[in-house]
Amino acid sequence: MHTHTLSHQYSLLLLPLLLIFFSAPYSKAAYNIPKLSPLFRTVLQDPNTLSTSISEDLETFFYSQTLDHFNYRPESYTTFKQRYVINSKYWGGANENAPIFAYLGAEAPLDDDLTGIGFLNENAPRFKALQVYIEHRFYGKSVPFGSFEEAIKNHSIRGYFNSAQAIADYAKVLMYLKKKLSAQNSPIIVIGGSYGGMLASWFRLKYPHIALGALASSAPILYFDDLTPQNGYYSLVTKDFKEVSENCYKTIKESWSEIDKVASMSNGLSVLSKRFKTCKHLNNSSELKDYLDSMYATAAQYNQPPEYPVTKVCGGIDGASEGSDILGRIFAGVVGYKGNWSCYDTGQYIYPDETNVGWGWQTCSEMVIPIGRGRNDTMFPPSPFDFKQYSDHCKSLYDVPPRPHWVTTYYGGQSIKLVLHRFASNFIFSNGLRDPYSSGGVLEDLSDSLLAIYTVNGSHCLDILPADVSDPQWLIKQRKIEVEIMEGWIKKYYADLLALKK
Amino acid sequence: MHTHTLSHQYSLLLLPLLLIFFSAPYSKAAYNIPKLSPLFRTVLQDPNTLSTSISEDLETFFYSQTLDHFNYRPESYTTFKQRYVINSKYWGGANENAPIFAYLGAEAPLDDDLTGIGFLNENAPRFKALQVYIEHRFYGKSVPFGSFEEAIKNHSIRGYFNSAQAIADYAKVLMYLKKKLSAQNSPIIVIGGSYGGMLASWFRLKYPHIALGALASSAPILYFDDLTPQNGYYSLVTKDFKEVSENCYKTIKESWSEIDKVASMSNGLSVLSKRFKTCKHLNNSSELKDYLDSMYATAAQYNQPPEYPVTKVCGGIDGASEGSDILGRIFAGVVGYKGNWSCYDTGQYIYPDETNVGWGWQTCSEMVIPIGRGRNDTMFPPSPFDFKQYSDHCKSLYDVPPRPHWVTTYYGGQSIKLVLHRFASNFIFSNGLRDPYSSGGVLEDLSDSLLAIYTVNGSHCLDILPADVSDPQWLIKQRKIEVEIMEGWIKKYYADLLALKK
Repeated sequence: MHTHTLSHQYSLLLLPLLLIFFSAPYSKAAYNIPKLSPLFRTVLQDPNTLSTSISEDLETFFYSQTLDHFNYRPESYTTFKQRYVINSKYWGGANENAPIFAYLGAEAPLDDDLTGIGFLNENAPRFKALQVYIEHRFYGKSVPFGSFEEAIKNHSIRGYFNSAQAIADYAKVLMYLKKKLSAQNSPIIVIGGSYGGMLASWFRLKYPHIALGALASSAPILYFDDLTPQNGYYSLVTKDFKEVSENCYKTIKESWSEIDKVASMSNGLSVLSKRFKTCKHLNNSSELKDYLDSMYATAAQYNQPPEYPVTKVCGGIDGASEGSDILGRIFAGVVGYKGNWSCYDTGQYIYPDETNVGWGWQTCSEMVIPIGRGRNDTMFPPSPFDFKQYSDHCKSLYDVPPRPHWVTTYYGGQSIKLVLHRFASNFIFSNGLRDPYSSGGVLEDLSDSLLAIYTVNGSHCLDILPADVSDPQWLIKQRKIEVEIMEGWIKKYYADLLALKK
Repeated sequence: MHTHTLSHQYSLLLLPLLLIFFSAPYSKAAYNIPKLSPLFRTVLQDPNTLSTSISEDLETFFYSQTLDHFNYRPESYTTFKQRYVINSKYWGGANENAPIFAYLGAEAPLDDDLTGIGFLNENAPRFKALQVYIEHRFYGKSVPFGSFEEAIKNHSIRGYFNSAQAIADYAKVLMYLKKKLSAQNSPIIVIGGSYGGMLASWFRLKYPHIALGALASSAPILYFDDLTPQNGYYSLVTKDFKEVSENCYKTIKESWSEIDKVASMSNGLSVLSKRFKTCKHLNNSSELKDYLDSMYATAAQYNQPPEYPVTKVCGGIDGASEGSDILGRIFAGVVGYKGNWSCYDTGQYIYPDETNVGWGWQTCSEMVIPIGRGRNDTMFPPSPFDFKQYSDHCKSLYDVPPRPHWVTTYYGGQSIKLVLHRFASNFIFSNGLRDPYSSGGVLEDLSDSLLAIYTVNGSHCLDILPADVSDPQWLIKQRKIEVEIMEGWIKKYYADLLALKK
């Protein structure tokens, strides 16, 4: 796979998929909820980080999962096959009550995570941990009723596609596994990144009898309702660029009106198509603006060492040849980031992969993350989050309106420190402050055992990605702290087990 | 209402209702899960405890409740009217962040609880608390889709009738109320008894952001799966009788075979009908045995002062006229308990009230409480809990099988101290050790703030029933301790609020 095509498969913007389904009017940033995948998939292409030998240790299983845990209609009892994968290479075994690391799948097929989430396999030997990876319902090979396409198009079936059902699935798989392995006393630590990180923290909250602790990496559990300012996400994207280069930031900020100006001229779209070497002729200026918007957001969210994509974009912009105008500099930023290609495919919205389509449904039903921008509070054009518009749009796509308050009703979030500092234990909320989603993360310790472990320079889910020889000290340190905290949980647990068990 | 009819309306055994629906073979104790109502309704008839003035302070409202919180099918969005009742007489108001007592309705219409659960109204002045009483979905005036009868007969609709949906209902009502009253910082303490006590403890576990603490009275949250010995319930019934009178216990123990012996003789059922003054001719000996079984269990479960029903039964048995045979003594026990009537209605199973029918569904779907008895481990004939038989029976009634492991999967229970002593806070598990359901209760502190407050002589839900001048010291003390613990929660909460809020 070439970098060139990455923007298609891993586009951050979910709006495009909406278009495929219903050809609604062209994208409004108001509907864009950047995806939450832990992986920016280039990582997987890096031979330094891809351990081909891991796959030999993996065993795949399928659990007969209940379709609806919260209902007792006859249909609720329908079962589907849910995929989970086990790596028992380093496990100390049930007799030792050796721990279990459970990776909770997020909005993607599980496959890439098996090697892409390095944290489990790299730390399993130290903990003598069993590794379990569980796929999220509706993704990959865990689709109820036929294909993903069929399931997601059927308005009765996709109703079962939500987080409460998903974590109940994880509960059932993990209880089943403990029983099967006679490992009733093996402590489980759940691990997830991004949306999966939210699931991990919610899992520890709701199922403390199954998970001893949670490592929730880059989980914006506070980006719901009005808990986080709507411009949190794009404010951080802006900050990231500004910190790298004031000039780069200014250029981008000025570019939007420049694009509009050119677009409004006769033949303007041809000029833009030519200047940005688009593979297809632009249909409107939004197509280009959304492409750039997505590129900046992606660069910021996955602004990871050693390459630091934001630096690459700004390197292009700042290093544009003498006398370049704004558009020329912006295009140089594209080239800086994406590399030199004969043309650039701005039509990213035509790739309806499972993540785009699935996450599209999830954000239009339950996971309403109100990301917006005001006038002049970011380097982007204003695009406030308009719930009415968002809801109408979702309704037109899926028949049902979103439930924007459900996440805070079911999982909480309001006054989180007040609520949790005397309730719950054993959470790590890890973040990188350069990740725009960290604006909705927990960045403050809530108690002695609800800990916020963040790095100033980190990006999205960096701590759970595979370690690399080029990793900076601050990242190595973050991971080390996390491992030590988890060791503390387990040590205490074993002491309790000894003291409390007959 | 006369005591005579009580056994009909408040029969403990749910099997009878099954018969109405499908005329299955006659009752087997194996299917009997004694009901969990906090109230034995005689209490309400006692003029000492019935405050007629309370009703003047009550305001009734209806909340437009979502049918299915855990699904996004179009049908899930259907709403129904859920009743809740407010008493704001003593409330200190939102400006003072004065507390809210929320009574979580159980398996009955809410009406009787408004006066029958004295704890809230009696302690509201001291706490300046708002009182909120919320009705459980499907009971009373909170029935989705027409009448209770229609809803429960429809296999699609009754699927929504379960505890996870019910506590999500409570979450939504309470969040709505806080908003409506601008009382975001008013701490909520949830209170419930019996099944409602389970709901209260599960609510605090699952929705700590809504409830600051829970008073779970006589909540057998451990009577699921294999967490509690199956004979726990009837062992305690037996113990209660034995403690009152060894002779009484022995007589009852011997009576079952005596009944069978007489029944097997020609004309035996006529003899039994006559000797027990049954209002209708007995159809078989089980009818009589179930009647007695239910009477003993009821007497033990609601063995409350000042009358102590077990003492009344045994008073009858032990005080039977000189020379009485076993059956004569047993009948004297019936008279001792029920009073002197021209006939006794053993056909209690013909009263399909909402509680019988609703709880019948709940125990056949989700709330599988495996109560059984072995040979000679109680004063009752053996009747082991046979899950296969139970499940087949439920399937024949409701089309779907029970999910016996769901409660422990969703709410936990296994190794409860190990799991919760470093997780969660602010629970009172109150019990009376003479209540047979206390065998499935939490009788040991799980941590400094997960407290088991029990009385040796107490019965089912005694602490939350209206106080009475005749209350014994140990009961007064139990309530006092509970109130002080709750004051501690609130005091700490206010301190936290002050320290943590900007």
